[in-house]
Amino acid sequence: QMPRGNLETIHHRALVLAQLRKWLDSLKFRDAFECMRKLRINLNFIYDHNPKAFLENIETFIKQLSSINHINLFLTELKEEDTTGSMYPRSESSPVQPQPASKQKKVDVVCDALRSVMESMDPNKFCLSILTAHVKKTVPELEIALQKVHELRENPPKAPGAVSAEEALKYLLFLVNVNDLYDYSLGTYDFDLVLMVAEKSQKDPKEYLPFLNMLKSLEPNYQRYTIDKHLKRYRKALHHLSKCGEEHFPEALQLVKEQKLYSEALRLYSADSAHYKTLSCAYAEHLVEQQQAEQAGLLLWRCGEPARALQAFATSSSWRNAICVAQQIPLPPDQLALLARDLAEKLNEQRRYSEAALLLDQYAKDCEEAILALITGASWEEALRLIYMHNRQDITETNLKPAILEAVNTQTSFLEAQVGTFTRHKTRLAVVREQKEKARLDMLDEDGPDCADAELYSEASSVMTNSKYSHSNSRISSRSSKNRRKAERKKLSLKEGSPMEDRALMFALAEIITTVDKMREEVHNLLKVLVLFQFDKQAEKLQLTYDEALQMMEAAVPEVWPEGLQTSQAPLTGPNSTANSIMASFQQQQRPAASQQDAEVPTAPKMRNGVKWKLSVLK
Amino acid sequence: QMPRGNLETIHHRALVLAQLRKWLDSLKFRDAFECMRKLRINLNFIYDHNPKAFLENIETFIKQLSSINHINLFLTELKEEDTTGSMYPRSESSPVQPQPASKQKKVDVVCDALRSVMESMDPNKFCLSILTAHVKKTVPELEIALQKVHELRENPPKAPGAVSAEEALKYLLFLVNVNDLYDYSLGTYDFDLVLMVAEKSQKDPKEYLPFLNMLKSLEPNYQRYTIDKHLKRYRKALHHLSKCGEEHFPEALQLVKEQKLYSEALRLYSADSAHYKTLSCAYAEHLVEQQQAEQAGLLLWRCGEPARALQAFATSSSWRNAICVAQQIPLPPDQLALLARDLAEKLNEQRRYSEAALLLDQYAKDCEEAILALITGASWEEALRLIYMHNRQDITETNLKPAILEAVNTQTSFLEAQVGTFTRHKTRLAVVREQKEKARLDMLDEDGPDCADAELYSEASSVMTNSKYSHSNSRISSRSSKNRRKAERKKLSLKEGSPMEDRALMFALAEIITTVDKMREEVHNLLKVLVLFQFDKQAEKLQLTYDEALQMMEAAVPEVWPEGLQTSQAPLTGPNSTANSIMASFQQQQRPAASQQDAEVPTAPKMRNGVKWKLSVLK
Repeated sequence: QMPRGNLETIHHRALVLAQLRKWLDSLKFRDAFECMRKLRINLNFIYDHNPKAFLENIETFIKQLSSINHINLFLTELKEEDTTGSMYPRSESSPVQPQPASKQKKVDVVCDALRSVMESMDPNKFCLSILTAHVKKTVPELEIALQKVHELRENPPKAPGAVSAEEALKYLLFLVNVNDLYDYSLGTYDFDLVLMVAEKSQKDPKEYLPFLNMLKSLEPNYQRYTIDKHLKRYRKALHHLSKCGEEHFPEALQLVKEQKLYSEALRLYSADSAHYKTLSCAYAEHLVEQQQAEQAGLLLWRCGEPARALQAFATSSSWRNAICVAQQIPLPPDQLALLARDLAEKLNEQRRYSEAALLLDQYAKDCEEAILALITGASWEEALRLIYMHNRQDITETNLKPAILEAVNTQTSFLEAQVGTFTRHKTRLAVVREQKEKARLDMLDEDGPDCADAELYSEASSVMTNSKYSHSNSRISSRSSKNRRKAERKKLSLKEGSPMEDRALMFALAEIITTVDKMREEVHNLLKVLVLFQFDKQAEKLQLTYDEALQMMEAAVPEVWPEGLQTSQAPLTGPNSTANSIMASFQQQQRPAASQQDAEVPTAPKMRNGVKWKLSVLK
Repeated sequence: QMPRGNLETIHHRALVLAQLRKWLDSLKFRDAFECMRKLRINLNFIYDHNPKAFLENIETFIKQLSSINHINLFLTELKEEDTTGSMYPRSESSPVQPQPASKQKKVDVVCDALRSVMESMDPNKFCLSILTAHVKKTVPELEIALQKVHELRENPPKAPGAVSAEEALKYLLFLVNVNDLYDYSLGTYDFDLVLMVAEKSQKDPKEYLPFLNMLKSLEPNYQRYTIDKHLKRYRKALHHLSKCGEEHFPEALQLVKEQKLYSEALRLYSADSAHYKTLSCAYAEHLVEQQQAEQAGLLLWRCGEPARALQAFATSSSWRNAICVAQQIPLPPDQLALLARDLAEKLNEQRRYSEAALLLDQYAKDCEEAILALITGASWEEALRLIYMHNRQDITETNLKPAILEAVNTQTSFLEAQVGTFTRHKTRLAVVREQKEKARLDMLDEDGPDCADAELYSEASSVMTNSKYSHSNSRISSRSSKNRRKAERKKLSLKEGSPMEDRALMFALAEIITTVDKMREEVHNLLKVLVLFQFDKQAEKLQLTYDEALQMMEAAVPEVWPEGLQTSQAPLTGPNSTANSIMASFQQQQRPAASQQDAEVPTAPKMRNGVKWKLSVLK
């Protein structure tokens, strides 16, 4: 920011800024501007210092600067960044200026505000600055700028000293790349404008004139389509092509497929037209390729292609829609039954047993298979409902009861295994924590509170080990924090002695709690059906096992996730402490807290104690 | 622990403990015991110092103590508490003794171990100590002790110096309240034993003899029942009463009802007996009173009372069971339809529309009502399935489409309202946090790092305000921490300026996120059916609104729940810091971390980004 090699002009920046603030506060924009230009201070500061005051006094600003060049300089230097945040921070005492809450970008706000004031003051005088304001917007308004130039040419202003179309175009070409400007002029579909730009450019008339003449010969919509396509504005191209009549539809379809403009295309044709159907089918094909067969089915169904819709729905296991379409066609009963069976098979594979059962029962008319699906899915009450509905109590004895007894055994041993693993992990966690705490204290003991030394022992505890990751993070900061967390978690290993074994154990423990807690509904339903069939002993054992498991895990939560995990270690103080020693011990605690969050310390899972699952008839 | 008023005998405890440890380590139990008795050191220390070594050397211990009185003294002084943890902490250097992992209580372990060794050494000599070991267990084994006394009386030991039954009983009466012992002797159903105890007691024979004689006259099971009931051992009483034959069943039923021993009673009668049925009905009545009608239904159904079971199932909206029972009875078709209608009505009230629809469709044979229930429940695809199944496409136009359009309007405006509230809360949270941070800095500025003074400003920030609650917690520590948390949360208020407004805002924000995130499935289903019926515009608006809402909330999470919320404030250090000033600023940060957990800082809700809800056919 400082001019180089010219010692006389070095000023103390703080003093300069103080002076600038005074000037800006008293609306002495010219003084401020001159000074800033001389000392190469970023001109954005004029706005950033007090956006509200600036916006309210734009006319003063323009009058004081008076020079078109100065205004253009200010406009071209505009950047989104707030200079009072980074380059020229405000002093502590000065109040923070409330930022305008609007979502509009700063550059756009300033450009629009200046332009509108200049237009009301004297559009001729400020012509070039107005053009600059259009071009400098975050999305440059080149077409409007070009239109204004065109306007100058059509109606040259009479005012003395007014800018000519020629001058204006020259200035635009100085601001914008000529090829861009040519494309933009094409995009206005205004051939006068195109020619005007083309003439000013270095382009060879032998090249552009034939092209322009060819365009001129086309039907207006097809002409615009051709220009849009040339400029790769495919949406607009499609829009114009759709107005070109029947014979151009194949071309439109081609464009839609090439540029995947299906949604846009559907909007351009009426829903009952043949084209709409053709487009829907094309879109559906594309969606099926994208694994979106269900949405494909919806499009096909609504455009009157039930057979193809059925195919798409069946592919995506969207069985309700499939059945509806099949009945609309209508499929003959035997084929409907076959369809239902096929769908049910898929649903069974996806463990969606209740849905499979509905299909088998109501459409395949096979209540036996339906009941078996429900039994496989442990939907005991629903199985019983179908058994009674179809008067098939024999299945209760042959299938339902044996399945229930198998389920209670499976559940009970599963729970015992979970409790075993949980206890093992919990015990190991206590050991690991004790070792780490010991290592931490040893380290502090041996080396005193010297931070630099302590760092060398970074392998001694996960606390320190983690700082390793924080370092490496700065190197790979481009990775999103989410990816980083995933990567961190992958590094966790349950292997004994692995650097973050404690955290891996906490994850494993949390997972077991969540799994076991999720079983409440399933256990409840199993207990009820066990009681119904007089299997009280098995039910009691399951209830006891599950109750003990839940209680054990709930009791373990405060131990595995102690309150204030991050703050449990008080700083080491005592008669011999110094400010430095306390800070050192404090920093050692800060680090784990911060880096534990880096690697995502698993939080204690919430148990759904509100879900009542126990039967009071069992003791 | 120190003897009072006798200065000569005061010893430095640390020295004494060191000496005791040496003695115990070298198994010099007698030296240790004598010294401890003299200096009134808790005798538990003999075991606690090294439980494993003690248990392995019990015989040495007993031999060295040799005196029955000393052994009894040791036994009677046993307490569950570990004296090495509290009273006589081990020195830093000595390794922690691994605790035996068994779940058994320490007192029981020691009693059982001593008793078993004494029994193997000389049951006669150690008779009184053995009795002590029985009586001192956490659940005193008075009956076994009494049996041993009885044994002494039946077979007086021949060994010289052996304890007589008389002496043993006297000793027991010294250890245990005479009335307790009398009751326990009654509980053995051994009248000899009862008489023996009664004679030793101060009881009036005119009182107890008639009672005993009455008992003797009874049939054995009824006798035991009478004794059990007298001792309020109702379970045992029921057990004996159940063996007394038919004529006593009403008495048993009475007992079951009075003492609510239903589960136990059912176990005592075979499932196909009339009594079992009677008991089941009684139990069911009780369960219905306890709002457990479904379980009542299960008991009634399985014992062969389908009509009453149906009633119970209907009461508890256990509709699948109700329908099964109804078909088993079997209810005539018109009554079954009526039942289905009643159940469906209840389910509709509970917003269980799909279940209601199933009943209406399959049992009440009213597909129209079924479809309407599904439409009310926003189960669009299932509604459509029934429409096609029953060929009622007219309902699509009259009800389904209008409902879908209403739903999309409701959802869109609901989302807009949620987004509005969310933004308002978030903005306010930023303001509150800034104010609190400012108050905190002001406080430190004005008063420096003096902790006592800073405490006076406790109202300035929630940080400090919370310490108020921590204080009060110590006064009401009897409340469970769960209740406390609930109470804490109640104190949160969204009112501007309320002391924990920031936390209340965080709770409110978390709730909105959870609510909105939960809508993924519902929005997805609504979008699909909107597309099917060509309501693309409405679908697009909903998709856009929902997408923006989710993105806005996800983006807000790091702002509302900044990483390291607890550790964001570094301790205030600088050239003028002192050890005290750093500690003071550190403590101020420690407190919020701890007390925020007290009042449960709402954690950032997890958003289910894995649930894909967007339709790619909508833009």
